[in-house]
Amino acid sequence: MTTLESRSHVGHTVRRLRDGAWADDDDLLAAEEPLEIRLIWKDGRKVVTRSIAVTMRTPGNDFELAAGFLHGEGILKAREDIADISYCMDEDEEQVFNIVTVTLRPGLVFDASRLERNFYTTSSCGVCGKAALESLEVQGCDAVPPGFEVASSVVRSLPQTLREAQAVFEQTGGLHAAGLFDRGGSLISLHEDVGRHNAVDKLIGQRFLEAELPASETVLMLSGRASFELLQKALVARIPVVAAVGAPSSLAVELAESFNITLCGFVKAESLNVYSAPQRVTRS
Amino acid sequence: MTTLESRSHVGHTVRRLRDGAWADDDDLLAAEEPLEIRLIWKDGRKVVTRSIAVTMRTPGNDFELAAGFLHGEGILKAREDIADISYCMDEDEEQVFNIVTVTLRPGLVFDASRLERNFYTTSSCGVCGKAALESLEVQGCDAVPPGFEVASSVVRSLPQTLREAQAVFEQTGGLHAAGLFDRGGSLISLHEDVGRHNAVDKLIGQRFLEAELPASETVLMLSGRASFELLQKALVARIPVVAAVGAPSSLAVELAESFNITLCGFVKAESLNVYSAPQRVTRS
Repeated sequence: MTTLESRSHVGHTVRRLRDGAWADDDDLLAAEEPLEIRLIWKDGRKVVTRSIAVTMRTPGNDFELAAGFLHGEGILKAREDIADISYCMDEDEEQVFNIVTVTLRPGLVFDASRLERNFYTTSSCGVCGKAALESLEVQGCDAVPPGFEVASSVVRSLPQTLREAQAVFEQTGGLHAAGLFDRGGSLISLHEDVGRHNAVDKLIGQRFLEAELPASETVLMLSGRASFELLQKALVARIPVVAAVGAPSSLAVELAESFNITLCGFVKAESLNVYSAPQRVTRS
Repeated sequence: MTTLESRSHVGHTVRRLRDGAWADDDDLLAAEEPLEIRLIWKDGRKVVTRSIAVTMRTPGNDFELAAGFLHGEGILKAREDIADISYCMDEDEEQVFNIVTVTLRPGLVFDASRLERNFYTTSSCGVCGKAALESLEVQGCDAVPPGFEVASSVVRSLPQTLREAQAVFEQTGGLHAAGLFDRGGSLISLHEDVGRHNAVDKLIGQRFLEAELPASETVLMLSGRASFELLQKALVARIPVVAAVGAPSSLAVELAESFNITLCGFVKAESLNVYSAPQRVTRS
């Protein structure tokens, strides 16, 4: 029987060329499967079911992924907004654990029309990064307050801590990781996925389900690059410091500057770059 | 004035920590901006305009990106299917070159209902990777025929060739690259983007607009990992060999096996892995 736990990897035969010689060998691949997220809510007396998103993800922590995604989109504000979260149960079908249904609590006012439009599109030519940032303000996001500080030596230690915790990475080399750390550099939580946005959704979704948001005194460490959508998720979770092994994009930096998030890139044991709000990284 | 060409990078001040000392410095960031893709077609006498997708991309080669995306989704089959492709022109708004409108040729039969549903979702619990593969068959994709071969020495040379061609990468470290190569390892075309799927869309979209598809005698080289959606785009373009610097996912390998695409991963100067259809990689 396939269990959820066994689905993060899939065995496969690989033909390897090493030192001029070919050999067939057993290998482990990072699992990738579609996950559909469905929302159920009451509109007056009518119960509405809607498919919200399909993402290609590594199976496991799917409830966290769904909760984190809906939180990042502004649909879920607090743990109590969820009446139920479960896998699709259709007795006529083989259960493949690839559909998660989130039922909103009765009485939650939910504007379904916001599902219809992507938040940064308009009817004119004016779609642009600036409009994307402004739409976050419209959603009620304000700047992350000052007051949290972290030593540069702690930030520089995080890539190594993250790699050591990534047992899975050692097996397949195929997973992005996102780790949440406290001020002293201790790992609070780690999640991995074939999609970097999924790894962050699982991480923040777990904190959401444990009613541990806002994450005001934490550092988010990313194994890859920092893009706009990852910073958006950090902003909604009120994470003050985001650090990445790779480069940030222009719009990630713009968001970080606009909302007073400290964004570090190219973080290594001996060096790092700070792109915004540098006062949170102390010089020790 | 901002030109399209100057928008792939954005200047920014960065605070760098190196050898224990902090210094402020000028830096270049990979540009990230939203692109909205709109489709216009005739339904009887009615002209329909629909927003199809918004993707976060690096500005530049946007027509190629839009064409490649619509080709990969099965909406465009041949160059002649496009009557017009242009940026949104609204005189009341500042032109920001972030909306591309593709007008289908008159008479093209287009089933708009396929836009309504994501191709791998169903109404039951049965959404899964197997269903995703089957839906590609339903779309009319059959296996890539045998007959094209490439030397392993050529495949192993591609990461270096790709890196040398990535002038942009040297500046920001922030862009994914996709390169199309011939049997001898010569670069046909290279595209870069903050999103790896966009880099592949730009690459294949360029070949599409030049009426150079199918790309039956080429190798697609990816600077990162190989996921299901990247293999799907290669399949529609009939590319027989896909090589990646990073790891493939399980579903990428399943797609490659099902449709006889040769998928290489962890490609380096001295070594590589072949996950499917290994007969196309000759042992020299």
